Amino acid sequence: MTRHDDRPVIALVPGDCTGIGPEQTARILAEGRMDDEARFVVVGDRRVLERGMRFSGVDLDLAQVDSPAAARFDGGAVPIVDLGNIDPETLPLGRPDDTSGRLTGDTLARAIEFARAGEVEAVTFAPLNKQALYRGGWEFPDEHKMFAHLLGHTGPFSEMNVLDDLWMTRVTSHVALREAIDQVTFESVCRALRLADRTMRGAGIERPRIAVAALNPHNGEGGLFGREEIDIIRPAVEAMAAEGIACEGPFPSDTVYLKAFAGEYDSVLAMYHDQGQIATKLKGFNKGVTVTAGLETVFTTPAHGTAYDIVGKGIADVGAFERAIALAARLARRRRRDRDAA
Amino acid sequence: MTRHDDRPVIALVPGDCTGIGPEQTARILAEGRMDDEARFVVVGDRRVLERGMRFSGVDLDLAQVDSPAAARFDGGAVPIVDLGNIDPETLPLGRPDDTSGRLTGDTLARAIEFARAGEVEAVTFAPLNKQALYRGGWEFPDEHKMFAHLLGHTGPFSEMNVLDDLWMTRVTSHVALREAIDQVTFESVCRALRLADRTMRGAGIERPRIAVAALNPHNGEGGLFGREEIDIIRPAVEAMAAEGIACEGPFPSDTVYLKAFAGEYDSVLAMYHDQGQIATKLKGFNKGVTVTAGLETVFTTPAHGTAYDIVGKGIADVGAFERAIALAARLARRRRRDRDAA
Repeated sequence: MTRHDDRPVIALVPGDCTGIGPEQTARILAEGRMDDEARFVVVGDRRVLERGMRFSGVDLDLAQVDSPAAARFDGGAVPIVDLGNIDPETLPLGRPDDTSGRLTGDTLARAIEFARAGEVEAVTFAPLNKQALYRGGWEFPDEHKMFAHLLGHTGPFSEMNVLDDLWMTRVTSHVALREAIDQVTFESVCRALRLADRTMRGAGIERPRIAVAALNPHNGEGGLFGREEIDIIRPAVEAMAAEGIACEGPFPSDTVYLKAFAGEYDSVLAMYHDQGQIATKLKGFNKGVTVTAGLETVFTTPAHGTAYDIVGKGIADVGAFERAIALAARLARRRRRDRDAA
Repeated sequence: MTRHDDRPVIALVPGDCTGIGPEQTARILAEGRMDDEARFVVVGDRRVLERGMRFSGVDLDLAQVDSPAAARFDGGAVPIVDLGNIDPETLPLGRPDDTSGRLTGDTLARAIEFARAGEVEAVTFAPLNKQALYRGGWEFPDEHKMFAHLLGHTGPFSEMNVLDDLWMTRVTSHVALREAIDQVTFESVCRALRLADRTMRGAGIERPRIAVAALNPHNGEGGLFGREEIDIIRPAVEAMAAEGIACEGPFPSDTVYLKAFAGEYDSVLAMYHDQGQIATKLKGFNKGVTVTAGLETVFTTPAHGTAYDIVGKGIADVGAFERAIALAARLARRRRRDRDAA
């Protein structure tokens, strides 16, 4: 590492090896477009990455290291902490597998240990399969909750979906809709607004403009179709606006995304999963990045999935994964600056 | 009326006169593009339509008639049942008004009387303002419920949103989200599927392919995020498929619209208002048509609103309104054929 190399160190995790992650990881490292943004250490099984190289038709020199702290980032061989835990030839390709899910979770857990030890500043991981992770024994509704658990994190955190300059988030997530409604409270809306604001500032957005979606149709139609807008959401928005957050709403959820996509806001806070996901998937957010906001470690991943239909063909697009890396680097750099200033 | 003129007779209602409806109505009648599709009788106030003519810069000969039955459709003057109930100069322009809402409702009610009497085969109305209608004293959550009430209709009915060849509908509508969840039952899902199927067949679609959306995120994730998919929706879909309806699902609601927009389905059945409306508004369904499905009278209206920002300028697009007329004519024609066959 040269004296002036201030690129953040990112643990690159190849994701579930039944999917396109390993070939994407190999291609990104070989093509080197992200090398100005960050220094990379692969955390995973060497055989998985090597098969990804074959699939992608790329060649990489790998330098085995015991931990990221021992890595040299001199532009030569790519450092890898070879966990030796996954023999990809024993697992299926192109379909989910519980064992692979378990091992993907194990690998992420090791990357998180390195983050806790301060050896890496962010974790960017290739696509995983949530169901395989769960069935493999990592019984969390999603990976974000798993990360929070592994970090012993007790404060607020949330998934955010990022495409270009738009940051989407939500108050509730992977729970039944009925339960989501119960979880929409003054406190949870305030918490989500603070978290979104802080995360976006952490990405360098000076004064994030956040639009808040209503829970009920027609924004509750003045109380006719539900009172959550009157009793909960508006008071929370007003309280957070008084704290200096540039939030507005609630707005009817069937038009708020149109406003945001037209550039009127940087972010929309949804009340529940599908409210946000219907809009973002139609808008092509699968080309974007998923961020775990609020944890002490920066986590990013491409929003798309394991793309089982094209696994092994070396044709998987790496754009979203590269954007995930760029965003992790941006967040980590800013976080380091804030820490240094403190 | 010539002997062989089998064009359906449509009551054209100029909508709320605070909005763009009257100028759209005048323009459509003057430009005559829809004259092959249907015969028109305007039901409303002559002064409202005449102001619409001025706004649009078009000239129309009007022939006052006592009721649609007395109208002559000889290509000469446009027949109008002048209700004499609205002096537009006493009402605001370009903003909602309770009195105007009440009078808009009164006018629609008269058009419905003519439909009940068999004097018109469909009602196509220009945009109204739901809140003004409600505040004006027509205290229904939406105009569809008002129409059903005025028709003494007790069976199932529903709003459908139509754009090009896509027909969107939902199990629940203008109620609080919490209440919507309670209203998702085996019976209500079956009812909605039957209604959608019948309505689309009534528009000439031989075997409508209907995709059913899940209620909970990730399609309930196998029961982890709610059991409605397992206990209610899937059994209902299977029961209706056994009856011969080409329905499938439930599917995660954040991808089902992508499938439908890609042409895999003719229709999506949403479980609640915003689920469908977020998707359809992003897809540009405001250029489409809203149909009240299931009533004895055919009702269609352009999906867009009163467009208060451009009222009086004569620049309002009439495409969606014309599509509403074309669809009303198609539905009415088919209905007449079915009745004649019975």
